[in-house]
Amino acid sequence: MLPVALASPSVMRSELSRVVGAEHVLEAPAGSRYNRDESRRRGVQGRAEAVVLPGSAEEVAAVLRWCYAHDVPIVARGGGTGMMGGAVATHGGVVCSLERLRRVRELEPALWRMLPEAGVRTRDVRRLARENGLFFAPDPGASEQSQIGGNVATNAGGPHALKYGVTGAWVAGLEAVLAPGELVEVGGWAGKDVAGYDLKSLLIGSEGTLGVITAVRLRLLPAPEAAIALVVFLRTRAEGCAAIEAVFAAGLRPSVLDFLDGDTLGMLADAYAAARGGAGVQGAVVPAEAGFALIAEVDGTRAEARAQRGALLETLAGAAVAVDEPSDAEALWRWRDAINGVVTGVRGGKVSQDVAFPVERLAEGLTRFEAIATSHGLRSCAWGHGGDGNVHATVLVDPSREAELDAAEAVGEELFALVISLGGSIAGEHGVGWLKRGRLESQWDRRALECHEQIKRAFDPKGLLNPGTKLARYPARSPVTSN
Amino acid sequence: MLPVALASPSVMRSELSRVVGAEHVLEAPAGSRYNRDESRRRGVQGRAEAVVLPGSAEEVAAVLRWCYAHDVPIVARGGGTGMMGGAVATHGGVVCSLERLRRVRELEPALWRMLPEAGVRTRDVRRLARENGLFFAPDPGASEQSQIGGNVATNAGGPHALKYGVTGAWVAGLEAVLAPGELVEVGGWAGKDVAGYDLKSLLIGSEGTLGVITAVRLRLLPAPEAAIALVVFLRTRAEGCAAIEAVFAAGLRPSVLDFLDGDTLGMLADAYAAARGGAGVQGAVVPAEAGFALIAEVDGTRAEARAQRGALLETLAGAAVAVDEPSDAEALWRWRDAINGVVTGVRGGKVSQDVAFPVERLAEGLTRFEAIATSHGLRSCAWGHGGDGNVHATVLVDPSREAELDAAEAVGEELFALVISLGGSIAGEHGVGWLKRGRLESQWDRRALECHEQIKRAFDPKGLLNPGTKLARYPARSPVTSN
Repeated sequence: MLPVALASPSVMRSELSRVVGAEHVLEAPAGSRYNRDESRRRGVQGRAEAVVLPGSAEEVAAVLRWCYAHDVPIVARGGGTGMMGGAVATHGGVVCSLERLRRVRELEPALWRMLPEAGVRTRDVRRLARENGLFFAPDPGASEQSQIGGNVATNAGGPHALKYGVTGAWVAGLEAVLAPGELVEVGGWAGKDVAGYDLKSLLIGSEGTLGVITAVRLRLLPAPEAAIALVVFLRTRAEGCAAIEAVFAAGLRPSVLDFLDGDTLGMLADAYAAARGGAGVQGAVVPAEAGFALIAEVDGTRAEARAQRGALLETLAGAAVAVDEPSDAEALWRWRDAINGVVTGVRGGKVSQDVAFPVERLAEGLTRFEAIATSHGLRSCAWGHGGDGNVHATVLVDPSREAELDAAEAVGEELFALVISLGGSIAGEHGVGWLKRGRLESQWDRRALECHEQIKRAFDPKGLLNPGTKLARYPARSPVTSN
Repeated sequence: MLPVALASPSVMRSELSRVVGAEHVLEAPAGSRYNRDESRRRGVQGRAEAVVLPGSAEEVAAVLRWCYAHDVPIVARGGGTGMMGGAVATHGGVVCSLERLRRVRELEPALWRMLPEAGVRTRDVRRLARENGLFFAPDPGASEQSQIGGNVATNAGGPHALKYGVTGAWVAGLEAVLAPGELVEVGGWAGKDVAGYDLKSLLIGSEGTLGVITAVRLRLLPAPEAAIALVVFLRTRAEGCAAIEAVFAAGLRPSVLDFLDGDTLGMLADAYAAARGGAGVQGAVVPAEAGFALIAEVDGTRAEARAQRGALLETLAGAAVAVDEPSDAEALWRWRDAINGVVTGVRGGKVSQDVAFPVERLAEGLTRFEAIATSHGLRSCAWGHGGDGNVHATVLVDPSREAELDAAEAVGEELFALVISLGGSIAGEHGVGWLKRGRLESQWDRRALECHEQIKRAFDPKGLLNPGTKLARYPARSPVTSN
């Protein structure tokens, strides 16, 4: 497909060894973790010919320069926790892992900011902030393993995005390598900057297809004094979604408003009681009549958090079956993070689609998604970040049955059409990657698609940066002749 | 310069009359307000051959289509309050004024959102929000006259950007006309969306050079219960800038942290006493020993605003000469907005440059700016949004003396070099427009500049959208052949 013209894998590795040192160039057999990510069912399989671990931004530039000179694809890779195949070398070539770029170049607590290199783990960004009385709000699901560069490259979300915005909202500037191998800086610490087009935002969420992010200027906030988490159980999906809207209508501003639908809740009920210290603890079980749950968090000063908690309870008092207020919020979040594993365990496999609806279409979206799954003979469930309308729409499958995998694929197709018809997005927070390549075509207008493709060509004229990933149309349209 | 090939002005107007109706096509004599904006000294003079006032987004698309078919430049125009010549037809052609697109298509208070067309005045967006218990935070200086489309196209700032971000932070989606005349939507109401490259952010701040914005999906917030404004007088610039940093170091989060340096304060002192109801009011005069002032605002619940006020006063108690707490915040802001007029009046003219420093370089930036002005024999003063490092760096001139205007220009050149050497931006919140075209070249890396230019060509292959404005390099580099 793409010409890997001048270099056999062994020549490639030997030449790249001269750039980054032989000990930082690895082979990548089929089973290598560098050829996979967390995309599971029919998981995306890479076929990298070399894995390169540069030790500095300059070495990243040199690697990209070598790839560009030799027509070799290059796939930037962070923690490998993506679920869309976006960090996998589907076209062969070089995987450029940023894991050795793990220096925090600046940390200025008094100015609320930090400059980590791309390979710093998100959990370490969060920890460093916390240790200095500050707060880095974005908390995507895999933040224990994921790296900040990958979070920026996918514009990762998470529960707290509701109040604080997604990762990109906290990026003041980027250092990145652009083709054919030049290190550039966009943005900076000045509080306002309209000097050029917003290349920073263009790189954020571009999934390694426009450049390789090597360092990130992050803005932080003073840590909120208090945060209170509540689990609100409701009878039905309709009542649950109405409760989300009621929270906004009441003028409340929770930091988190996640949801689990009734099916998800059923599968997670035992784990809930366990996480809460056993059924003996008052209120610490999922009530039998619960068909929907909200996980809400309010934060601020102690007084403000208490006031928001009170207002939230008052707003939801009529609809709630029960409210649980775990003293151990960590345990609650661990339970929440167990969803993937538990749901997968029920039938051995699952297919989840990360989509987003306008919040007022959430109930309709969930109901129609269930109907789609049922019509294909599959059991479904859904959870996600309700306040943002961001849904992980899931069908359970027996992964040994090809017919079920095909049915799951068909469900996905109908779901995407539904999402678009309701004014939502086919990709909420997990990116497009390899698995959703080409799907933008059904969401965007023709001329916007063309601009997307022309931007790709401007940044990556040879098409070597993470080829295949985040394609607007698939197969890619042949270049349009502009002026 | 650009070929206005097929149409004489009268043919142009007659053809455009068929698109929007004859009563909505105007001639534009040299003195017409459509040929000017608020750029004053050596003000930018347009030479529009027609002013077109489309009545709908579809008509905007039709106008752009006509211009593209006939190689006629088109300059989108909002309230005309820009100060950089960005809404002026410097290359002739058509001024496309959005003033008739003034419908609010959606207003959903319970969902905190509004969808105004581009021509809705910013003050009306703010008023409508307020009347519904909500809050549209951006408050650029000219919001009485400016239109929301222009605010988005310039990514306008203002005092409250410190806590709430600039205009773009509140844009969930855009409707825009892209060349050669297609209406597209980017973004939407879903809370998360990573389906494509961030074209929305690219259009925000693009000053009509990539497309014409016709409607804006705005997110709003519940209105803060209370806001308290304080004027803190300090002895010196150094102490004033240190006070700004002290506020951050104390973990406070004011909604506004504007400043006036000693020279500005001196010119505004009489007006201050007048605005505060006369010198008889306790604390309502500028103290003789004041050489710097901060205008701070804290907001939130009543309790929170009070607490922040207390903490702010405590933080600044050591340094402050005096603190004034006007009960009439409106009067305070009117006084603040009078700066331009008062400073202009001193010598009949002024030249202000809108730049931004990283906040910790603010003191150094102001000191060195003053030295630059002095070395050119000009009196200077500065004010702006201190917490964001955003400075309106000003020299006073007698506009009848060409030598002073030349000196002011030389001051600007040296200031821009200074700003860049301190890691700041040559354009904070007023845009690039015509007056700062080409200056990005000294701020950005070569390859980033090239991407800027390639994006322009992708969106506007004929170079007809607001030609000259926001050019990265000037004269523009000849197109790079990208494959």
